[in-house]
Amino acid sequence: MQFSANQIAALVGGTVEGNGDTSVSTFAKIEEGVPGAISFLANPKYTPYIYDTRSSIVLVSNDFVAEKPVRPTLIRVEDPYATVAHLLDMVSKMTSRQPVGVEQPSYIAEGVTVPDDAYIGAFAYVGDGVKLGKGVRIYPQCYVGPGVELGDETVLYPGVKLYHGCKIGSRCILHAGVVIGADGFGFAPHDGHYDKIPQLGIVEIADDVEIGANTTIDRATMGATRIGRGVKLDNLIQVAHNCEIGHDTVMASQCGIAGSTKIGANCMMGGQVGFAGHITVGDGVQVGAQSGIPGNVPAGARIMGSPAIDAREWSRQTVYQKNLAKLYRRVDNLEKHAEQ
Amino acid sequence: MQFSANQIAALVGGTVEGNGDTSVSTFAKIEEGVPGAISFLANPKYTPYIYDTRSSIVLVSNDFVAEKPVRPTLIRVEDPYATVAHLLDMVSKMTSRQPVGVEQPSYIAEGVTVPDDAYIGAFAYVGDGVKLGKGVRIYPQCYVGPGVELGDETVLYPGVKLYHGCKIGSRCILHAGVVIGADGFGFAPHDGHYDKIPQLGIVEIADDVEIGANTTIDRATMGATRIGRGVKLDNLIQVAHNCEIGHDTVMASQCGIAGSTKIGANCMMGGQVGFAGHITVGDGVQVGAQSGIPGNVPAGARIMGSPAIDAREWSRQTVYQKNLAKLYRRVDNLEKHAEQ
Amino acid sequence: MQFSANQIAALVGGTVEGNGDTSVSTFAKIEEGVPGAISFLANPKYTPYIYDTRSSIVLVSNDFVAEKPVRPTLIRVEDPYATVAHLLDMVSKMTSRQPVGVEQPSYIAEGVTVPDDAYIGAFAYVGDGVKLGKGVRIYPQCYVGPGVELGDETVLYPGVKLYHGCKIGSRCILHAGVVIGADGFGFAPHDGHYDKIPQLGIVEIADDVEIGANTTIDRATMGATRIGRGVKLDNLIQVAHNCEIGHDTVMASQCGIAGSTKIGANCMMGGQVGFAGHITVGDGVQVGAQSGIPGNVPAGARIMGSPAIDAREWSRQTVYQKNLAKLYRRVDNLEKHAEQ
Repeated sequence: MQFSANQIAALVGGTVEGNGDTSVSTFAKIEEGVPGAISFLANPKYTPYIYDTRSSIVLVSNDFVAEKPVRPTLIRVEDPYATVAHLLDMVSKMTSRQPVGVEQPSYIAEGVTVPDDAYIGAFAYVGDGVKLGKGVRIYPQCYVGPGVELGDETVLYPGVKLYHGCKIGSRCILHAGVVIGADGFGFAPHDGHYDKIPQLGIVEIADDVEIGANTTIDRATMGATRIGRGVKLDNLIQVAHNCEIGHDTVMASQCGIAGSTKIGANCMMGGQVGFAGHITVGDGVQVGAQSGIPGNVPAGARIMGSPAIDAREWSRQTVYQKNLAKLYRRVDNLEKHAEQ
Repeated sequence: MQFSANQIAALVGGTVEGNGDTSVSTFAKIEEGVPGAISFLANPKYTPYIYDTRSSIVLVSNDFVAEKPVRPTLIRVEDPYATVAHLLDMVSKMTSRQPVGVEQPSYIAEGVTVPDDAYIGAFAYVGDGVKLGKGVRIYPQCYVGPGVELGDETVLYPGVKLYHGCKIGSRCILHAGVVIGADGFGFAPHDGHYDKIPQLGIVEIADDVEIGANTTIDRATMGATRIGRGVKLDNLIQVAHNCEIGHDTVMASQCGIAGSTKIGANCMMGGQVGFAGHITVGDGVQVGAQSGIPGNVPAGARIMGSPAIDAREWSRQTVYQKNLAKLYRRVDNLEKHAEQ
Repeated sequence: MQFSANQIAALVGGTVEGNGDTSVSTFAKIEEGVPGAISFLANPKYTPYIYDTRSSIVLVSNDFVAEKPVRPTLIRVEDPYATVAHLLDMVSKMTSRQPVGVEQPSYIAEGVTVPDDAYIGAFAYVGDGVKLGKGVRIYPQCYVGPGVELGDETVLYPGVKLYHGCKIGSRCILHAGVVIGADGFGFAPHDGHYDKIPQLGIVEIADDVEIGANTTIDRATMGATRIGRGVKLDNLIQVAHNCEIGHDTVMASQCGIAGSTKIGANCMMGGQVGFAGHITVGDGVQVGAQSGIPGNVPAGARIMGSPAIDAREWSRQTVYQKNLAKLYRRVDNLEKHAEQ
């Protein structure tokens, strides 16, 4: 497939600058541009590349001002990042082969209805009483335990494991190796060892949730561990039993949330953040990478550090910390002065 | 199933306060109570909920004193948390369907004896020379490598991978995605690149161990990586080659232990803790979340921070750190005073 | 198999000290020595064990000087660690059974050529258009997505998942549960929720790379996430979309690298390190465990802490931090003195 700059500009509502007949057949990052590719410039850190890139077309912002001559044809748009996402999505839909049907051998318990437009890959296991939404795609080697419910268009990539009774909404994407509904980490101390506390609850995941590879979300002791609509979790994240995450919260890789903690909606968490158990984090909270959250956090807070404090205060603390050598010397001098 | 407060009190040795005929058919958390449910109150943080809960029965401690009228029937017991664990366990045993038999297709190497009461799920792989204890349950898509031994009643949830030669005790529970016996991370530097050091040892896991989803325990270079009786490991934990963990130690999610480190018995580790390699941690040590342990730790220590120090000392350091702005101002003032 | 000290010394170019006819049939760690085993002494921390070990032969360095009588036969070599690695490798090759052939049931798409000397385990899935190198070993329950290429002698341990289009070099080892090519974590904010940005790139892994259990490497948005020749990644590591890691870099367990970050060659990273996105780390950088890297790092730097600073400076900071109590008291005294 080939598209000209004029065709693309028409599709995305942009303005062409340069030769509108220039055509492209692929995407490339601006710093890895090749002839015949379209690139985009959204992050100002990458601006220098526009003067060297070998790409044929570059999507730029309406307010981009070139400081030197630019070789590729430009298409000016409101938001180059959103535009390229939109283009990628169109191409992805035109080119990706969505598998359909039931591959053999697979295991589907008696009585389970497989919708006509669903995909069940080889070596997938679908247990008793499972309910499958329209257009679900269950890739090879997935385990869908007894009584699990999957909403319409939900995708389980290879090797996803869903324990019994868990409920997954519509249009969710669970990446390879995700484990939903393993037992929460609950033990009662007893004569120097630990008795297991049975975990009888489930996990409930709302619509439009995406969960990264090898992330784990434990089932509740009673009731449900709940993941809200539109939540995006990166890879290797741990969500413990009875946690709740509000809608449209995003969390980067390797975060961990201890048991019964409630996190609000529209939060953003950096990578490797840890949350203590039984705490409440308000809506719209932003947490810097590697932070540790020992207690409740009010809505809208921006925090950082371990234990986490206000992010600006944390920046100041970092400077104080860096200057300690000087402070020690200043106190040395004061002591010498006092002795005199 | 319905049970009255009088019946439950008789079962658990408790005392009824209120209507003993009140009956329940399910469990609920006290803050999510519904009519017909039994809840419990163990953590004092949750006390306010007892005055609002819609649950029909609440298990409370013998020394609970209500400050306002309480609507549900109370059952007073010595330890409400242990009691509810006991009740959950009874219900879990009455209601859970333990699968039995061999599902097809599965792969069982010639000569392996499958006990009558065992379960081997579809797409499970059981290699040459594997020894299976009575009542083992191997869920779908597990890999049990050549020569592996599994003790009685041990459960492998879907997708557990056990490399060749590893030994797992009785009554162990390994959750989905656990990997036991992958090669330890051993390489010898050689002319600017690395030569692999073969890892010829195994992993030995004692009885009554529970291991969380996607946790990894590497095989030893020689000898064995050893996990003691009754150890409980949460999800996404890393145990490197030749480590040893003493009996009844519990470790929260995302901890990492570097190679050849020995951890004592009855320790408690918070989440995301990191241990350096080749160190020894004594019995009964407690480590706060996100700590980093660079060296040996004596038995009974309570430590915190990265690098970890005595937990009380760490609390003091946190205060000193927080007050640095004031300290800088005090030194500024002293300098002004000295100049005069 | 039995080997005498004289035979082993001849194999490895060492010098026998003691009875050259002493023979051994196994390996043991020096602190766990048993009669009939060969051990080695490389790390000086373990020197005291040589006077007690029950092993029959010990490999020691040419410059080892015994301070007390030593019972086992010694074999002196240049580098005991490299020598034992070499011996382990020889034994590993002599004893390990490399499986060959195609086990049933497995799924191999029409048109895929399976080399004669390859192994494809039961329940493995090999998709359309996959290219398999000579001697590849694909253990049970692996998923090799459409269009994937595997180089010669590459090993996928049980349950590895390779998404479509990814390219893996020759002689690579991917341990159980590794996920390569899941979608990068890319979302565009839009009216308070997030739109998925399709991830159309791939992952390219060069030759001689080893990747630990349950590690995840995401596919690029466009282009490729690239892992260089000879890279060794431990377990549970996260590599985000569009990252690049230079040749012969090693990274311990649970590190995380955010999107588009470029890491140089011959670097060494401790465990649980986090790298921010869109940064560049030079060649030969060494990073201490649990560090957090917020920005670019010049080649050859040795850094530590979160945020990371020069490692020696970090050591000094740790001392300043530890002595804060004293500093506060010194300022108290100065203030009292000033008041007088």
